[in-house]
Order: sequence, then structure tokens, then C-alpha cells
Amino acid sequence: MDVLIAGFGVVGQGITEVIRDKQELFQRRFGKRVRIVGAFDSHSCAVDPAGLDPSALLTRKCATGMVGKERLDTDMAQLTEELEYDTLIEVTPTNIVDGEPGSTYIRTALGAGRNVVTSNKGPLALQFGELSALAAKNQVQLRYEASVGGAMPVINLSRELLMGEKIYSLRGILNGTCNFILNRMKEESLPFSSALQEAQEMGYAERDPTYDVEGVDSACKLTILANAIFGMDVTYSDVVRTGIRGITEEAIALAGEQKKVIRLIGEISENRLEVTPRLVPIGHPLAIGGTLNIVQLITDLAGEVTVVGPGAGRKETASALLSDILAILKDEEVRNGAK
Amino acid sequence: MDVLIAGFGVVGQGITEVIRDKQELFQRRFGKRVRIVGAFDSHSCAVDPAGLDPSALLTRKCATGMVGKERLDTDMAQLTEELEYDTLIEVTPTNIVDGEPGSTYIRTALGAGRNVVTSNKGPLALQFGELSALAAKNQVQLRYEASVGGAMPVINLSRELLMGEKIYSLRGILNGTCNFILNRMKEESLPFSSALQEAQEMGYAERDPTYDVEGVDSACKLTILANAIFGMDVTYSDVVRTGIRGITEEAIALAGEQKKVIRLIGEISENRLEVTPRLVPIGHPLAIGGTLNIVQLITDLAGEVTVVGPGAGRKETASALLSDILAILKDEEVRNGAK
Repeated sequence: MDVLIAGFGVVGQGITEVIRDKQELFQRRFGKRVRIVGAFDSHSCAVDPAGLDPSALLTRKCATGMVGKERLDTDMAQLTEELEYDTLIEVTPTNIVDGEPGSTYIRTALGAGRNVVTSNKGPLALQFGELSALAAKNQVQLRYEASVGGAMPVINLSRELLMGEKIYSLRGILNGTCNFILNRMKEESLPFSSALQEAQEMGYAERDPTYDVEGVDSACKLTILANAIFGMDVTYSDVVRTGIRGITEEAIALAGEQKKVIRLIGEISENRLEVTPRLVPIGHPLAIGGTLNIVQLITDLAGEVTVVGPGAGRKETASALLSDILAILKDEEVRNGAK
Repeated sequence: MDVLIAGFGVVGQGITEVIRDKQELFQRRFGKRVRIVGAFDSHSCAVDPAGLDPSALLTRKCATGMVGKERLDTDMAQLTEELEYDTLIEVTPTNIVDGEPGSTYIRTALGAGRNVVTSNKGPLALQFGELSALAAKNQVQLRYEASVGGAMPVINLSRELLMGEKIYSLRGILNGTCNFILNRMKEESLPFSSALQEAQEMGYAERDPTYDVEGVDSACKLTILANAIFGMDVTYSDVVRTGIRGITEEAIALAGEQKKVIRLIGEISENRLEVTPRLVPIGHPLAIGGTLNIVQLITDLAGEVTVVGPGAGRKETASALLSDILAILKDEEVRNGAK
């Protein structure tokens, strides 16, 4: 399988390492290699139809800040269209205004008959229906396990392992940063501002924390789940959303007196598509601490199935991208009857 | 897909209901029907190559205690060999002495080129290697998600969704009855005997609770996981096992003083294949209450991935059998290029 990597930040570098380190698995399990035939970042690109050396790409990016040898004015969308490859790994930064530049890369690749594996929430939270239809029309795969909950395999679990279930509703904690802040506010009786500062110092929160603490990130993920698992046709703006900025120490203490904690919960059900702080009894799975992500699926036969995993991180996100790459390889293998 | 159901107790009846109720799904998703062409219990059988009516089977079993019209001396192994069908659903009771009669049915079906879907721990805990090899030799599938943790999809999660991970170790609570007892002992400061009696009154524990409280059930499930996920070649007797009969109220109170609970934990790692009561800090995922099952997988890229679900129940076990039936249908679909 030949891949093109669009975006060479933390996630792009992570999946490059994983592709380098898992060649033995690709070979043993599928008798195939996964070759990186192209990679680009904002201002440079590297291309080699015979396969690029992953370590060389990582070293150059680290040393020069660029994945390519020199700063170029290459039209990356054109490169995405014209290069010969099988699967686009689209890992540019999330943009929830118009999804760009990821949306263009994904659309171009699908249109050119390539599979797409992405961690990018923007295009999916804004144009899920259009992009899915484009993939179906071109008989290629669009996979996005990495876009929700990092290494927590919620999408493939719901769509593949729970394929036979009627999933009535879903509840979950989809943003590790908010969970860390709420947990620290309770544990140390800290005000929001101090807990946020701690999260920033530990690298969990960005300098501008709006995207996390206002529930935007959670709402994007909830939108993807609503489309992918519930077959809804919704975008990010359909989510009713309240963040955690308004949560006071007093509210948390009061909840504690009732043996409850406050958590930022995303919920999808017949009448609800909402991210909001809610009271959760201590001991309930959703009262989880740390930066973990958790999703509970409420189904007709299996009852409540819960999955917990690290919601972010270079290696963890790469792990989810890898699971989608392997799913494509497996599908091709079965299709070719080579089992 | 034509199926033969071996065993018509709680689980056999559960999967019969599910096959009846999910025809619309089979049709919509795969353009296929799943027909029950045969079903048998200890002393009777019903066969119809054109398909049996699931509701009629359920009604007759309920009214007469038999799935067939009359008590017969049919050789069920011979029936399993000679009937025309695609997949055996083997749901006879677990027997951990020699795996019979399930082992014979599974062996016969695999040998005759049929797929097998089973919830039966005995054959897998005793003859995993032999049965897997037989399935591979005959190029058919042997699937057993229902044998461990009911509706908790741990096997398919590990083998399919986490295919790319190096799984270093596994820890889990695999028996809901023991967890209920340990939890009640703590919550109500009950001695073991009273908590056990309560579990029996609520239908969680059998009149002879040995299989649960001595850790036999957990050890069987751990054996299956060790073979299926870690590629070990072990049987039930390789598991180091301690049950919960010896746990005193005092031990639980002492653990509580250290903010810990006692849980019956199964662990698989390089040097360990063990079921034993262990101290777990309150707030840790494994400190879960109720009759839930939980498994944590510790992996190279995804870190710790945890899955929680109902470990038993008619509907829940049927749900796991259904997921395996659907996996076979999906595989055939992809193989036939009908996607």
C-alpha cells in the first residue's frame, strides 16, 4: 500500500514512526509493505514513487521544520490529485470554520479514487454527508477512527463489532482537558482559572483554551459520532453546547456533598444532541478521572457497553490511524480471497 | 445462511429469538436471510431444510421442554455431520472435564466444512489449539466472542480493532457473580456466606456455586483469552487459581481503610496466567461494582484500552453470538465482492 501523508505535525510524525516500526506486522499479516510515497506540510513536500525513508523525513522535519528539502510553492491539492498512491493519510490541523485545508485534500483524494484515513475533525464535523457520499460513489473508503477519542476505538467498535445492535443512545466524555480541569477543581478545591493554568503547564490545554473549555472540541466529536453511528445528518452547529468556564468551586463542592461529580458529558439520543456539564454519581463509569475519554453505548441486546481509552497523544492518535490502515488492508485481503 | 442450533437452553432460545427479530437487518445489510434449518436439545430435534419457524420452536420448548416434537434417540453428532447447513451455533452447557458434548459437535461441524459460532467455554478451555487448527485446515471460521464476558466484545476488539497493537498484558474481572458478592460484602459488611446467599436468591449464583466462587469460570475465560489474544497454547489447568471463599469481612474492612477494594482479577502477561483476589484502589476502573465484566488491555501504541459490558444474560450472550454471525456474513460479502 502506497500512502501520501498530508500534514507533518505531531500526528503526521507519529504515523510516520508507526509505519516505519510496523513493517514486520504488515509483512507478516498481509504479505505487504506500506510505503510512504509522499508527505507534505504547509510549505514543503517530499515525493518518491519508490518510497521515502521514514526516519529521514522525521530527522529533516526535526532539524529544519520542513518535511521537504526546500520551501516550495507546490499546489498540495494538485499533488494529492496527481501523485500515484492508494491511501491519503490526512492529518492537517482541525479547522472548524470551513474544514480547510483538510476538506480539499480529502475531497480531492476521494474524487481521484483513493482511500482516506484521517484524524481531522473539521471536515467531518462540517461536511460528513458530502464526504461519505463521495467515498461511496467512488467505491473507496473514508475512515476516521482517529478523529474521536484518540486510541479509544469507539467508531469501529460501534459500526463493526456492534453492527447487529440497535444503538439507542450514547453518552461520553470526549475531551480529556476538560476532564482533567474538573477533576483537579474537585481534588484540590481549585478555582477554574488555577486548574486551567495547571492543565496549560502540563501541556494538556492550549494557550488559547477556548476550543477545549467551551466544549467545541467535544461538540465536533459528538457530531462525527452522530453521523457515523446514528446515521444522523448533522453538522457541528446542530449541537447544543455549554462549556465548563462557568463551573464554580462552590458548584463542585455542592455536588460532592451529594456524592456526585461534575463532568462535561456529550449525549446523543433521539431528541438530544448536546454537550453540557452534568452531575454524575461517584462510582458511575462516567465519573472517571484523569485525561481519559470514555463512551457508553446503550443498545437493545448488549445493554450498556463502555469503552475507555487515552483520548489524545501522538502515539495514541497514530494507533487509531494504524487501525484504519489495517482495516483497509484486511478488506483488500479478503476481497482478493488471499486469506 | 442456514444454521443448525446445538443446545436449546437459555442461550439457544436467546439466539433463536434474535435470529427471528433481526431478519430485517440481515436483509438490509447483506441481502440475506438467516434460516434455522435444524435445532436440537438433549433428547429431541427439529429439522426442516426449508427453514423452521423460530417462534414455533420457542413455544414448543416452553410448553413441552423439548425443541422437537417427540423424544428421539437421534445421534446428534451424526445429525451435525450430515445435515446441510452453513454454520453451527453451538450453545450446549459448559463441561470443563472433557468439553462434551460440545467438543464433538464443534469438531464434527468444522470437519464437515461448516463455520462454528459458540458460547461454550469447555471445548475452548480444553482443546483450543486442536479446534483452531481444524478450522484453519478446513478453511472455515471458529468464532467464540460469546464464550468470554457475554456482550463485552473483548475478543473481536483485541483481534480485529487492535490488530496493529502489541498487547503486552491483560487484566480483568471475568465473573459477575464473584464481583457482586465482593461488592455486597463491602457495601453491607456481610460475611461471604450471606452475600453468596443473596447472589443465589437473585439468580446470579447457582445452587452449587463452586464453578463461580472457586474461580473456575474466570480461569476458563482467561484460558480462552490467552489462546485467542496472546497466541499462547494453554489449557484450563495451566491457570494458577485462587477463589474468593477465603475472603473475610475483616480483610475487606482492612482494604477499605487503605481506600482499596478486593476484586477477583484475572491476569495474563509474559510470566503470569493467574486468577486471584487482589487489592484495587477505589476509583481505578477495575474497582467496578455490580455484575459487570471488564477487561483492560495494555498495548504499545494505544496504551490502556478498557472495555466494560454485561458479562452474562440470555439477551447479552445472544448479542455476542449475533456479532459473530454478522462477522461471518460480512466476510462472505467482502469475499464475494458484493460490497
